[in-house]
Amino acid sequence: MTELPVPPPWTARDPLAALPSFEAGWVWLAGAGPGDPGLLTLHAANALRQADVVVYDALVDERVLELARPGACLEFAGKRGGKPSPMQRDISQRLIELARKGKKVLRLKGGDPFVFGRGGEEALALVRADIPFRVIPGISAAIGGLAYAGIPVTHRDTNHAVTFVTGHMAGGGIPDRVNWAAIAKGSPVIVLYMGLKHLGTIAGHLMAAGRKDTTPVALVSKATTPDQFVLETTLIRAAEDAVVHDVEAPALIIIGEVVRMRAGLDWLGAIEDGKELKPDPLDLLFNALSA
Amino acid sequence: MTELPVPPPWTARDPLAALPSFEAGWVWLAGAGPGDPGLLTLHAANALRQADVVVYDALVDERVLELARPGACLEFAGKRGGKPSPMQRDISQRLIELARKGKKVLRLKGGDPFVFGRGGEEALALVRADIPFRVIPGISAAIGGLAYAGIPVTHRDTNHAVTFVTGHMAGGGIPDRVNWAAIAKGSPVIVLYMGLKHLGTIAGHLMAAGRKDTTPVALVSKATTPDQFVLETTLIRAAEDAVVHDVEAPALIIIGEVVRMRAGLDWLGAIEDGKELKPDPLDLLFNALSA
Repeated sequence: MTELPVPPPWTARDPLAALPSFEAGWVWLAGAGPGDPGLLTLHAANALRQADVVVYDALVDERVLELARPGACLEFAGKRGGKPSPMQRDISQRLIELARKGKKVLRLKGGDPFVFGRGGEEALALVRADIPFRVIPGISAAIGGLAYAGIPVTHRDTNHAVTFVTGHMAGGGIPDRVNWAAIAKGSPVIVLYMGLKHLGTIAGHLMAAGRKDTTPVALVSKATTPDQFVLETTLIRAAEDAVVHDVEAPALIIIGEVVRMRAGLDWLGAIEDGKELKPDPLDLLFNALSA
Repeated sequence: MTELPVPPPWTARDPLAALPSFEAGWVWLAGAGPGDPGLLTLHAANALRQADVVVYDALVDERVLELARPGACLEFAGKRGGKPSPMQRDISQRLIELARKGKKVLRLKGGDPFVFGRGGEEALALVRADIPFRVIPGISAAIGGLAYAGIPVTHRDTNHAVTFVTGHMAGGGIPDRVNWAAIAKGSPVIVLYMGLKHLGTIAGHLMAAGRKDTTPVALVSKATTPDQFVLETTLIRAAEDAVVHDVEAPALIIIGEVVRMRAGLDWLGAIEDGKELKPDPLDLLFNALSA
């Protein structure tokens, strides 16, 4: 990213000055966004500068954690290095324990806590324990990650609907209650979260339901971080290409014609690598002339 | 909202200090989030404090605009008071004109610019005019608004997929290329943007495709603002209830069992009105016992 110094601090009207005070014994359940600390919300930054303890997931960027109050305790609660992740029940129990000790507890999750983040489960555990809480939404990976890949989630010429779906269950399998055929028919654009492992199977379901094997697909690995890697492929080649190009998790998978917009809208590629952007990425003018 | 003073400013490590510098002649296309200024990203706040001109939509909250640099020019580009909205072409042209004059131009849209925001169209106009630009994603109304209504977008016991769909086209009609029957079958949870006007018709399509008339529905008007109003209803009653209760635009419409989670997770209702939260909003324990 082009990260340059900015003008003198904005002391006159500090945007954090009007935000809520973190009270002792509360849990704030917040999204940290997909990686780039600039995608934190003001509420999340305000939480970080007040929290006593930050209980964070593997997907929370280190640069975000650096914004915590000096002296705050950072507790990792996620899966890392092949070790089993802590049980969800244990994490919830830890939040309750810390809150009961009178701490200001920030539960920080990658992306948004309520979009495939199990935030609802943790919040309900707090309700059962009578712990007061607040929810701070975050930029979900699908929205922030696609924007940084130069792909709009919706675009008038390609889709009026988009479906976000998880390709991976807590137990490791493919979700059994997802109607892939209906999604194939109803959603011109599909964004798969955690879809790398079962991509071949899922792509097969979508093609069996009528999606063309040439449907454009983008794999966005480590979106919005300095290691962001975007691979453009097609529905039939996606699973193989993910292996060949060693696409690493976490990765978003975007399926649909809207992926072609990237040729025109990859603003980050233009800034960082001088990529030339195409004024008509969907070839609409060409189509209009040849129609 | 409970907005209290916070501890002394966080001068030691200003989260805005490492963010990019706004260069003259550039356009930054940014999302302002759904309303609450606390849902602005650090990137958007950084943009506001540097921009010469802010070209904003009707959905951008006034409190967000107050964060603009003193002396910045605020230009309204949206529909208001029954007057026709400026043509999209005129807005794009204005951005180009300002950038060519060497201004630092912030194009600020409600929610996220790439989620039903026509950001792709504006960005392509910049590409055609050879104006350098950057995209700053925002908290989309569906994600921020649902969180503030106490409804998770996804929850393990209710849905592994969610579809965002627009209920209204630029021309005023219902989108003609949306396969409502497939969406009804594929997406346990559907979030309608701009769906008030055609809600009866859309609900009819969904019920015709097999969605129960008792499916829970929430209408969230003016989400995350001090005027937020949430109405819980059912699919068959939703359109009539919207009229009876005078639900005002902008409104999000959430369709699916996940709406029942609100009884447990309406944290804002608990903070502001002392609402008692239900520890088992989906009655899972009851179902388990009676099964």
